[in-house]
Amino acid sequence: MTNRIGLFGFGVVGQGYYEIAKNDRPELLPETIVVQNKNKERDHSLQFSFDPTDILDAPCDIGIELISDPVQAYDYVNSLLKSGKKVISANKKMLAAHLPELLELEKAYGGSLLYEASAAAGIPIITCLDCHFAGDHISKLQGILNGSSNYILSRLFQDDLSLQEAVKLAQENGFAEADPTLDINGSDVSSKLTILGLHAFGKYIPEGEILTIGVQHVHAADVTLAKSLGLKIKLIATAQKDKDGLSLHILPTLVSANDPLFLVENEYNAAKVTSQNLGEQFFQGKGAGSLPTGASVYADLTKAEKGYGYSYDKLNGKKVTPEQPQSASLEVIISADSQEALKPMTDGISIHQANGKYWAISTVSTAELIKQLPVIETNKLSIIALNNTVSKENVLAQIQQQETVNIN
Amino acid sequence: MTNRIGLFGFGVVGQGYYEIAKNDRPELLPETIVVQNKNKERDHSLQFSFDPTDILDAPCDIGIELISDPVQAYDYVNSLLKSGKKVISANKKMLAAHLPELLELEKAYGGSLLYEASAAAGIPIITCLDCHFAGDHISKLQGILNGSSNYILSRLFQDDLSLQEAVKLAQENGFAEADPTLDINGSDVSSKLTILGLHAFGKYIPEGEILTIGVQHVHAADVTLAKSLGLKIKLIATAQKDKDGLSLHILPTLVSANDPLFLVENEYNAAKVTSQNLGEQFFQGKGAGSLPTGASVYADLTKAEKGYGYSYDKLNGKKVTPEQPQSASLEVIISADSQEALKPMTDGISIHQANGKYWAISTVSTAELIKQLPVIETNKLSIIALNNTVSKENVLAQIQQQETVNIN
Repeated sequence: MTNRIGLFGFGVVGQGYYEIAKNDRPELLPETIVVQNKNKERDHSLQFSFDPTDILDAPCDIGIELISDPVQAYDYVNSLLKSGKKVISANKKMLAAHLPELLELEKAYGGSLLYEASAAAGIPIITCLDCHFAGDHISKLQGILNGSSNYILSRLFQDDLSLQEAVKLAQENGFAEADPTLDINGSDVSSKLTILGLHAFGKYIPEGEILTIGVQHVHAADVTLAKSLGLKIKLIATAQKDKDGLSLHILPTLVSANDPLFLVENEYNAAKVTSQNLGEQFFQGKGAGSLPTGASVYADLTKAEKGYGYSYDKLNGKKVTPEQPQSASLEVIISADSQEALKPMTDGISIHQANGKYWAISTVSTAELIKQLPVIETNKLSIIALNNTVSKENVLAQIQQQETVNIN
Repeated sequence: MTNRIGLFGFGVVGQGYYEIAKNDRPELLPETIVVQNKNKERDHSLQFSFDPTDILDAPCDIGIELISDPVQAYDYVNSLLKSGKKVISANKKMLAAHLPELLELEKAYGGSLLYEASAAAGIPIITCLDCHFAGDHISKLQGILNGSSNYILSRLFQDDLSLQEAVKLAQENGFAEADPTLDINGSDVSSKLTILGLHAFGKYIPEGEILTIGVQHVHAADVTLAKSLGLKIKLIATAQKDKDGLSLHILPTLVSANDPLFLVENEYNAAKVTSQNLGEQFFQGKGAGSLPTGASVYADLTKAEKGYGYSYDKLNGKKVTPEQPQSASLEVIISADSQEALKPMTDGISIHQANGKYWAISTVSTAELIKQLPVIETNKLSIIALNNTVSKENVLAQIQQQETVNIN
């Protein structure tokens, strides 16, 4: 059976998929490629269309959406699903925003929607959550889901670079954009956690509801402290279920040497899933790049070809509706350049001075941290979760060892 | 659609699957359970049959084979496939021996055969190799595929136990059989590597052709040496493809601290796959146990229900025929209690005495090691692969540091 395939977008990911299909099964190459920018220099051996209706109104079987603009991506995917097509997307922002509606369209019109490449790029985490954890009860999912941030943290720990130097190097090596803000503030991690949360727990928590702190304020003294404790700092996305509900949070987090997340370096991503039946499952793979991401798209294509669709078994047939996450209590290290900067978050808590920074250790709820995000940003507070890898007392003892003045 | 399911065997794995189905979707419970031993004490709330034809001649849709006897298992699976049924098996010995024939039956009669639980228990490695590496070229697969051996090595490294003490503890904790021979000599790892090799490389190498050395001769001085180099010893199964062909070998192997295999402890299993498109993918999960293994069977069941079958895309449609592996050259540490014991394998190589053992470092082919297996067994030679984690020179320097007499 030959599939007529339409492709939107021919950027890094689109070219990765194209390359793989060309070398493996040319019948899985797109019949039509629609791109937006008429002035961009492109491969002259390929024919491009600039008119989306060349796919949307054509008798195509499978539509692949690999563009960066989430608004445009939504229009294409929406339209394809309304025609009952099989659709593949890698647009995490769009998916995180519109999954409830898209799943309704899938059901109503008999199409299907696969999106393995939208979270953790080359790792088959969505497919595994969807079909390997059937009938299982997942209690916790933790992941390193942003290759740029992880690359930057590797440079801080391995090469003693400052954050600014590490960001620059990430840009030079193609792991961060010219404007690195979105790479370092964790903003794409929350989209991914929304998507994974739906598959792991059957709950749709809009990404705006998730506490998200990136690596933007991690400083060299944090690295010194973590190293002195034998730990590393990773940008960890956590979704954890207990009797009260599902809590989600993303923030720099201490990781101990016996945790498989400890060895995830550079542009690699990882996910650790704890469940009733399977114990602890761990997945690690490339979180970015043309071929790894294109490979996930290509794997989706071979699944779509066979009629595979996600089961969403954790939804138990329920309609997807947005839910609020449960607030969770976190032990965190808070540090800043001045005692003043720490004040809004350290009422009644000891502040310590060491290694040119001011430090406090606090137990704080994710709800409170969300409220404090403007202060965290303005005062450039570094917030690092202890994550049960070390006791507050041990961290304090380390800080006090390097303490110059005990302030109150 | 309701599936009529027949189950052969109600041991540890069968009970795990049963438990999961009961709590998740009772319609996926077996209609008939056939067991062999009439005298065994069993759950009185369940009805058992002792007649295989209650499944084989009944109008069942899916047959699940979870017995230990590979000969009997083959008969059941063969018969089910000849009736065009969907079949799930966890019998690694049977599968490794009969896959070529069973795949022909699958094609000829339109049934399907899934067997995720047969390798690395709870890790979805077969499904991932089959559908996530579509169109990819895998160059190397390395795995920790035996929970008992890994548990024993963890005890040697973490608790300084002797091999005998560790085996005893593994038995007490249910991680090794009363007769531990099959657990420690690597014999079930070769079945698993045969199965994984077919999915990763499209080549069927019968397990008897694979160099297989277990942990049976690893001694405390090996542990001391590895520790002094900052390394661990793991029982690593390797399948590696180069221009000359595919080589496979299983033997105790040095693993460095930056390798994700380093952190795989106790009954956990792992697989590391290196490929052209995806770079390095790593999977870790429970390699044994009722629920983890039962969960893989249950996941197969939900896949079979949807009509999912393995694609075997690495076969490119070719018929599966047994092939010889390519011999590979390995750098190994060889040690024994006496200089005499080392002699057959150390012609012209320096022998060193340290820590109560005699040592040599040699470069030897897997073909030669297979020839020497009787000597290795008789002389209780410990053979440990360097695996490019450390240079011969560094190992020699460490041995010489502890050397008491330089012999020749």
